[in-house]
Amino acid sequence: MPAPALLFFADTQRSADLRYFAGFEVHDPFIALRTGRRRIGVLNALEFGRAWEESAFDVVHPLERLTAAAKAAGVARPGPADHIVQLLRRYRISACAVPEDFPAGLYARLKSQGIDLSVIEGAVFPEREVKSDAEAAAIRAGNRGAAAGLAAAEALLRAAKPVGRRLIHDGRPLTSERVRFAIEVACLEAGGMAADTIVAGGDQACDPHCRGSGPLRPNDLIIIDIFPRMTKTGYHGDMTRTFLRGRANDAQRRLVTAVREAQLAALASVRAGVPGNQIHQRCVDLFNERGFETRRTARGSVGFFHGTGHGLGLSIHEAPRVGAVERPLPLGSVVTIEPGLYYPGLGGCRIEDVVQVTTNRPRFLSRYHYDWELTD
Amino acid sequence: MPAPALLFFADTQRSADLRYFAGFEVHDPFIALRTGRRRIGVLNALEFGRAWEESAFDVVHPLERLTAAAKAAGVARPGPADHIVQLLRRYRISACAVPEDFPAGLYARLKSQGIDLSVIEGAVFPEREVKSDAEAAAIRAGNRGAAAGLAAAEALLRAAKPVGRRLIHDGRPLTSERVRFAIEVACLEAGGMAADTIVAGGDQACDPHCRGSGPLRPNDLIIIDIFPRMTKTGYHGDMTRTFLRGRANDAQRRLVTAVREAQLAALASVRAGVPGNQIHQRCVDLFNERGFETRRTARGSVGFFHGTGHGLGLSIHEAPRVGAVERPLPLGSVVTIEPGLYYPGLGGCRIEDVVQVTTNRPRFLSRYHYDWELTD
Repeated sequence: MPAPALLFFADTQRSADLRYFAGFEVHDPFIALRTGRRRIGVLNALEFGRAWEESAFDVVHPLERLTAAAKAAGVARPGPADHIVQLLRRYRISACAVPEDFPAGLYARLKSQGIDLSVIEGAVFPEREVKSDAEAAAIRAGNRGAAAGLAAAEALLRAAKPVGRRLIHDGRPLTSERVRFAIEVACLEAGGMAADTIVAGGDQACDPHCRGSGPLRPNDLIIIDIFPRMTKTGYHGDMTRTFLRGRANDAQRRLVTAVREAQLAALASVRAGVPGNQIHQRCVDLFNERGFETRRTARGSVGFFHGTGHGLGLSIHEAPRVGAVERPLPLGSVVTIEPGLYYPGLGGCRIEDVVQVTTNRPRFLSRYHYDWELTD
Repeated sequence: MPAPALLFFADTQRSADLRYFAGFEVHDPFIALRTGRRRIGVLNALEFGRAWEESAFDVVHPLERLTAAAKAAGVARPGPADHIVQLLRRYRISACAVPEDFPAGLYARLKSQGIDLSVIEGAVFPEREVKSDAEAAAIRAGNRGAAAGLAAAEALLRAAKPVGRRLIHDGRPLTSERVRFAIEVACLEAGGMAADTIVAGGDQACDPHCRGSGPLRPNDLIIIDIFPRMTKTGYHGDMTRTFLRGRANDAQRRLVTAVREAQLAALASVRAGVPGNQIHQRCVDLFNERGFETRRTARGSVGFFHGTGHGLGLSIHEAPRVGAVERPLPLGSVVTIEPGLYYPGLGGCRIEDVVQVTTNRPRFLSRYHYDWELTD
C-alpha cells in the first residue's frame, strides 16, 4: 500500500518537519503536499522564483493559479481550505495525513468539505533522526556559533574584576543580561539567532529553567548554555560550559570534576546500537560513586535530575533521547551529552557537547575547551 | 448566553492571543482556559512560581496534579489531551471554543473523547485592537528599538565612503548583511529581537519581500524596515526610513518628497471613526496628482501597490487595516502609516511611522528624523 498523501500548512520556522521537507526557509504559512515521492509546494508570486531555485520541491505551483481555480468554482474569496481543495482535486487525492500541529480550523473546514484527513501520531519523518553529512556540517556550523558565544562570555568574565561581591567590567557590575547580550551578538555574527540563552550563576543555575538575571558573583559557578538556530540552514547548535571567575573551593572543584568525568564516561559509551539508558546510567553511576546524591526536596530536586542528552537538528529537542529509555541509538543520529549536578548553596555545573553516532567512537560536532576556573 | 469556555494549547511566542490572555511569556506549549471571566493556566513545576508572580491568570494549576488525576483515572502515560480532559472535568465543562491554530491532533483526540469543540472563526479577542496606555508604552518601547536600529544603520552609511560603485567601510564594501547585523545588535541592546529586517538598495528595494543582500551602492535609495519584538512584553515596533548615501538626482528627490507628503497627508486624516480606505485614498490621490503611476507589468507591479498601513501590537500585522477597507478606525487602535513608491531603474522609497488613533490628531508612538540624503 502506498503511503497516503501528506499535507502541510505551516511556516518553516515553526515546523521543523516542513523545513525538512521543503528544504528552504519560508516565514509565512504555505501549502505543501507529498504524493507518492513527489514534493509539491504552493507559493505566492513573491516566493515563487526563490522556491524553484532554493527549495526541495519537485513542483512549485503559483498560489494565484489555485485562487483563480477556486474563483472559477464559485468561491468568492478563496482561503487556504479552498486552495487545498483545488490542489487535491488536481492530483485526484481524496485522503491525506496531516501532522499533529496542523491548524484545527483548517482541519475542520477540509473535513466538512469531504476530505478524508488523518492525524499522524508520533514522528512525521522518522528519518530525520539520521543525519547526512550535510546536516552534520550544518549542526557543526551551529556549534561554531555557540562556541563563538562561549568565547564572548569567557572574554567578558576574564576581563571583569572581582570587587567585593561584584564582578566589575567597564565600571559597572557584570550581569547575566550583559553576558547574554555579548553571546547573542556573537551568534548573530556567526549567522545564527540564540534565543533563551542561559547565563545563570550561583543558586539560579540550580533551576534548569532559569535563564539567569542580575549581577554575577565572584567565586560562583556560572552555567552558560547556548543553542542558536542558524538562519541559513535552520539547524541548531547546543553547547554548555560552566565557568567560575575568581577562585574555586574544593567542593566546587569536586563538583566540576565529577560532571566532566561523567561526560567523558558517557561519551566513551556512545555507539550505534547502545541503548540511551545505558549511556545515561554511566553518569548516574559515576555521580553515585562520588557521593553526589540525587533526591527530591520540598524546594525542588537536587543532584542529577535531567536526562544525559537529546537528539539535535532542525529542532533543539528531537529523537533520540539519551535518558531513561531503552531504545538503541541509531547510526548517524546526533545527540547532546550534557550531564549536570545542582546543589543550592554550592551551585550548579553542566557541560554539554554534541556528537554524531558511529559504529565506533562518536564524531564530535562541537569544540570548545574545558578550562573553567578564570583566575587573574 | 454566557460565552463558551475558551481553550488554548500553545506557547506565547507563536500565539499572540495566548500572550495577550496569559499576560506573560512561556516558550513551551501549555494549557490555558477561560471559563466565565476566570483565567486559568496549567503550568509545570518549573514555571509554576513564575506564573503566580507574573501572569494574568486568576488560578494556576500545577500540571503534575492533572497528571496524577489522569493516572488515577487509568491513563498510563497522560498527554495534553488527558490533562485537558481532567481540567474540564474539574470545572464541569463539556464544550469549548478553540482558536483556528489549535493543534489538529489534540482537537481530534479531544473530540473522540466526547468534548464538544468549536473553532473560532476570525479574531479570538477583538478587544486586542484597542490598546491600553501600557500597551501603547510597550509599542513605543518597540519603536525605540527600531529607532536604535535606524541610527546604527545611518551611522554606518554616513561613515562609509563612496568609491566607484561601492560604499567602503573599514576597508571592505558595505553590504546589506553588515548593516542588518548592526541593526540586529542595536535592537538586542534595546531589549528586542529583530527578525527579517529589510536593508534593500536600488532595484532590490522594489520587491517588498526582498530582504536585501550584497554590496550597497552610492547614490541608490536604500529602504530600511525594522520590526523588533520586545522580549519582555511581546509587543513590536515597526519603522521604515529610506536613505541615500552620496548625492540624489532630481527624480529620486521627487520620489522621496512625494512619499513623505503622502505620509503626512495620511497622518493628518487618521482619526477615530475614519474608514481605512479614506486614509489610504489620500496617498493614492497624492501619488496620482504627482504623476506617480501604479500599474502591473510583466515583471511585477510598480508604483504604490500595498496598503497604507496595518494594526501593530503583539502581532506585526493585526487589525485594523489601513487599505482598501471601509471599516472605520477604532478609538485607541494603533496603526502604521507607510506609503511607498517603487520603480525599478529609479528605486524604491517607503517611510513608516506608528500612531495611536484618538478623537483628534493621532498620538505618535515612533520617532526618528526624516533627513535621508547622506552627503559628505
